[in-house]
Amino acid sequence: MASQSDIDAHLQAVAALKAQEASQRYDHAALTAMTADEARANTIFTNMRDAERESQWEKEGDLASFAGMDFYGARKNGLGSPSDVWNAVRRMPKGALLHCHFDGTVDTSFLLEHAKKTPGMAMKADRALTKDSLWSATVEFLVLPESEDRSNVSIWSEEYAPGSWVSFEAARESFPYPHPYELDQGSSHAHMPAYMELSKPAAQPNGTSAPGSSSKGDAFDAYVHSLMTLTPHEAVPAITNSKQAWSKFQSTFGVIAGLIGYEPTLKAYTKELVLSHARDGISYTEARINFLTEFMVRSDGTPTLTHEDWVRIFIEAVTEAKAELGEGVFVDAKIIYTTVRFIDNDKLRWYLEDCISLKKLFPEWIVGFDLVGHEDPLLPLKHYIPELLRFQHRCAEEGISIPFVFHAGETLTDGGDADLNLYDAILLNTRRIGHGVSLARHPTLTDLVKEKDICVEICPISNQVLGYTASICSHPSLLALLNRNVPVALSSDDPSIFENFGLSYDFYQLVISSKSTSLVSLAALARRSIRYALVDDEAKQRMVEDWDKRWKKFVGWFLKEYGHLARQ
Amino acid sequence: MASQSDIDAHLQAVAALKAQEASQRYDHAALTAMTADEARANTIFTNMRDAERESQWEKEGDLASFAGMDFYGARKNGLGSPSDVWNAVRRMPKGALLHCHFDGTVDTSFLLEHAKKTPGMAMKADRALTKDSLWSATVEFLVLPESEDRSNVSIWSEEYAPGSWVSFEAARESFPYPHPYELDQGSSHAHMPAYMELSKPAAQPNGTSAPGSSSKGDAFDAYVHSLMTLTPHEAVPAITNSKQAWSKFQSTFGVIAGLIGYEPTLKAYTKELVLSHARDGISYTEARINFLTEFMVRSDGTPTLTHEDWVRIFIEAVTEAKAELGEGVFVDAKIIYTTVRFIDNDKLRWYLEDCISLKKLFPEWIVGFDLVGHEDPLLPLKHYIPELLRFQHRCAEEGISIPFVFHAGETLTDGGDADLNLYDAILLNTRRIGHGVSLARHPTLTDLVKEKDICVEICPISNQVLGYTASICSHPSLLALLNRNVPVALSSDDPSIFENFGLSYDFYQLVISSKSTSLVSLAALARRSIRYALVDDEAKQRMVEDWDKRWKKFVGWFLKEYGHLARQ
Repeated sequence: MASQSDIDAHLQAVAALKAQEASQRYDHAALTAMTADEARANTIFTNMRDAERESQWEKEGDLASFAGMDFYGARKNGLGSPSDVWNAVRRMPKGALLHCHFDGTVDTSFLLEHAKKTPGMAMKADRALTKDSLWSATVEFLVLPESEDRSNVSIWSEEYAPGSWVSFEAARESFPYPHPYELDQGSSHAHMPAYMELSKPAAQPNGTSAPGSSSKGDAFDAYVHSLMTLTPHEAVPAITNSKQAWSKFQSTFGVIAGLIGYEPTLKAYTKELVLSHARDGISYTEARINFLTEFMVRSDGTPTLTHEDWVRIFIEAVTEAKAELGEGVFVDAKIIYTTVRFIDNDKLRWYLEDCISLKKLFPEWIVGFDLVGHEDPLLPLKHYIPELLRFQHRCAEEGISIPFVFHAGETLTDGGDADLNLYDAILLNTRRIGHGVSLARHPTLTDLVKEKDICVEICPISNQVLGYTASICSHPSLLALLNRNVPVALSSDDPSIFENFGLSYDFYQLVISSKSTSLVSLAALARRSIRYALVDDEAKQRMVEDWDKRWKKFVGWFLKEYGHLARQ
Repeated sequence: MASQSDIDAHLQAVAALKAQEASQRYDHAALTAMTADEARANTIFTNMRDAERESQWEKEGDLASFAGMDFYGARKNGLGSPSDVWNAVRRMPKGALLHCHFDGTVDTSFLLEHAKKTPGMAMKADRALTKDSLWSATVEFLVLPESEDRSNVSIWSEEYAPGSWVSFEAARESFPYPHPYELDQGSSHAHMPAYMELSKPAAQPNGTSAPGSSSKGDAFDAYVHSLMTLTPHEAVPAITNSKQAWSKFQSTFGVIAGLIGYEPTLKAYTKELVLSHARDGISYTEARINFLTEFMVRSDGTPTLTHEDWVRIFIEAVTEAKAELGEGVFVDAKIIYTTVRFIDNDKLRWYLEDCISLKKLFPEWIVGFDLVGHEDPLLPLKHYIPELLRFQHRCAEEGISIPFVFHAGETLTDGGDADLNLYDAILLNTRRIGHGVSLARHPTLTDLVKEKDICVEICPISNQVLGYTASICSHPSLLALLNRNVPVALSSDDPSIFENFGLSYDFYQLVISSKSTSLVSLAALARRSIRYALVDDEAKQRMVEDWDKRWKKFVGWFLKEYGHLARQ
């Protein structure tokens, strides 16, 4: 046996080293300044989390699940069902959601409910939707003017002429195939896997779907749901890598486009975006809107709705949502203008000028610019340098500020173009980095990002579902950046497509998988996210004050609910 | 359009930032000191690698494979079959293999060949090996003295009494089930998946297996092969996470134990370890031997072979292998004494004293001490502090040096005991860290490891197969540590179980997946590995000189073979 003093010296050295490392973390300031209530809540929460790890995720003999496991596996294992940790995470104030794509945010069932209420809604496919082609065909929706002809041939029959429009309602009522999610369950009672039921918005959209509902209709809805999400089920091939995930992911946007791109739906969807985020404790959302399509469909079915109209609708919807939530709660949403990184430089100039025009019309609402799309195969930022630099001059000329907030480093390839996008983004003075999956392996860039106070919008569930990491536990950058106190804001990316609505799922996955993350750590993350919102300091100050109030209220609720669990 | 000078300024800034970051890398010194030949070879290799990425891994429209993908998927896609990059990687000098487990190193077919030649070899199972239990039963082998009874009841019949020993030969010749790998192929001609054929050692062990071979025997061999490896096939459930992988992984050692733990096999196996590594360009191996079992089986079948005998056999085998390879080639192998991290402190003291005794008997051969096993569920280093500190005093007392070379951080759980093992290992002055999967997320520890010149033995394929990362591309520490010039030595861990024999597979996966890695990068890694061998400086100097000679010869061969590909 070693002498006790040797042992003590070792234990002290370990404790000192841990403390030295912990002092660099993002949550250090918050943990050292806790009120007595916060400290009590934090301890109770950590015990609760450890207990939930043991009872739900790390059960003796259960080889199938583990804390922080892949999202769909986790949903099957109960993630999102009421549990102590889930309830607390769901209820806590989340701060700002800085990275989500507008058309991938609100539950797809909301779009389906609206489609059912839209008489002009039509549907087409690139081939007859027979049993064999059902899952491989390209399906699209669009609201057509009443005057426009629909085919009367069933889209489900061999006689269907590829590309011809049919009535949505008729197609829905005549869906001839089994409910796709029933295949998984082997039970006619289960309309959807249990974990999908939970993804429905807490408040249903207005309007009743009951009259039109039917078992054929339900099966159709589940089919279209499946076309708009990455949720796995028996009828579609399992996704095992990033390329397959992106292939499916990209296809979902084409399905969503025609359902969302209709004036009344657009407005309702935007309102629901704000309301559903408010329900999840999110105060503020910066939605990346993809303005690639020049026109959407007006209420009367004509495809002439401009970008300007769209922003106006967005503003109206946000204003109405705020009014509905009342004075007591701070909520807001802004727009990051985006287009897709496959266009050429000439076309990019058109979009950049369009962005400038919108900014001048709606200076409070257009807060940034980004290029989106699958980074690996698409064009790198370096391809667009001339136009992006010109844009900076143009903004200066116009006396406006539209900061870049670029996606960069969402890739598996070390040293590939998508990885190298990080250098260009940083040197183009990006204000935040979207994803930055590969950032932590770059020591100089990591230090520079911290020095320049650039926030990294990490989307843990998105990164896992899209094949950049097997689970949040092995994410190449998340914990490495957090422990270095590089600014990180957890984000949901495309929650309607992955079904990680709001921020609760991403927060939960972090805190359940990481024993060094506590309730106060999550709070520090949430509070700090506000700092990186693209609004002025006064607006941020208001948001922080509101957040502090919410947090205090939350701690009170938490102690009331769980205070009895405190160990004496 | 921005002005050309703005564009140039941006491009220069990007180039400067890249150069700044690259100057910190492990390969920087080597890349800046290249001879003309090395520079030529490096350029040709990079072009060759990029071409092979495109033609084999990133083919347009191929969604199934990608460069650096999971190991078994990669094998199916041709990894290990002759290709330009494979040929070069296979042939290059690899330096030292610092992390492999003795009983998980040599191709399992070698053990099977030896079992067939061992008349006393017996087999048992914990239940009758019927069609239903074949893949879930626990199967063991052991050489028994001739005098000991074997049961005559077939191990494949319901009548078999669980736990009774039967003749290996009789069991093999009467294997009643289909060849398990034929199930995968749907063809009676395919005895094993093509990629498994390639895993056979380049030189077959002595002795002929032909006379005893038969289609039943082949099927039996494939069955036992499957019990000793993680190679996926139809008959066994797919492994989808780390817990499942470890469950299967641990079971393989119990199967291997009885085949390997027999004096003549042990000697032949050790010799083959050195020879097969030499064939792969590895100069030096530090094998972690698990001394948990106190006795193995002597040539006459008695189970009385001691640890001392074992080390003596190891020395004889290595000496014979060296003699066989001749004076011209430097090769060597040493032993890291290990036991398993589930024993109590009293038992640990026994092993530590055993380790000291062996060190005193064989001072040149026992070079370090480690604790092995699944870090997450087993005991953390902190549990063993008293005995580990005492060991350091005991070594000082005895005037010997047995450095620690601890496994640490082979885990998914941030802040869990296995993650925290890193603190204890470093403060116990570990000379290297086994795995360190979670290291890069610890900024203070990362800096400290670099400062203390501790080498991290990263095992990319092992980490992927055992569920710590989806692929080498998203490894949480590999590239982050390399880019920070923290010492890293690529290692194979348990290549007989994963079938990533030698170091070629791990080297290939790195260079094919990382565009910032070149031939000279791999060479820098290989050369540097020698620096962390646990031998004296003079021995290292000899190894480095030998490596330099091999490398020069390799570059000559490479340019002769591929020089015509140089772009003008």
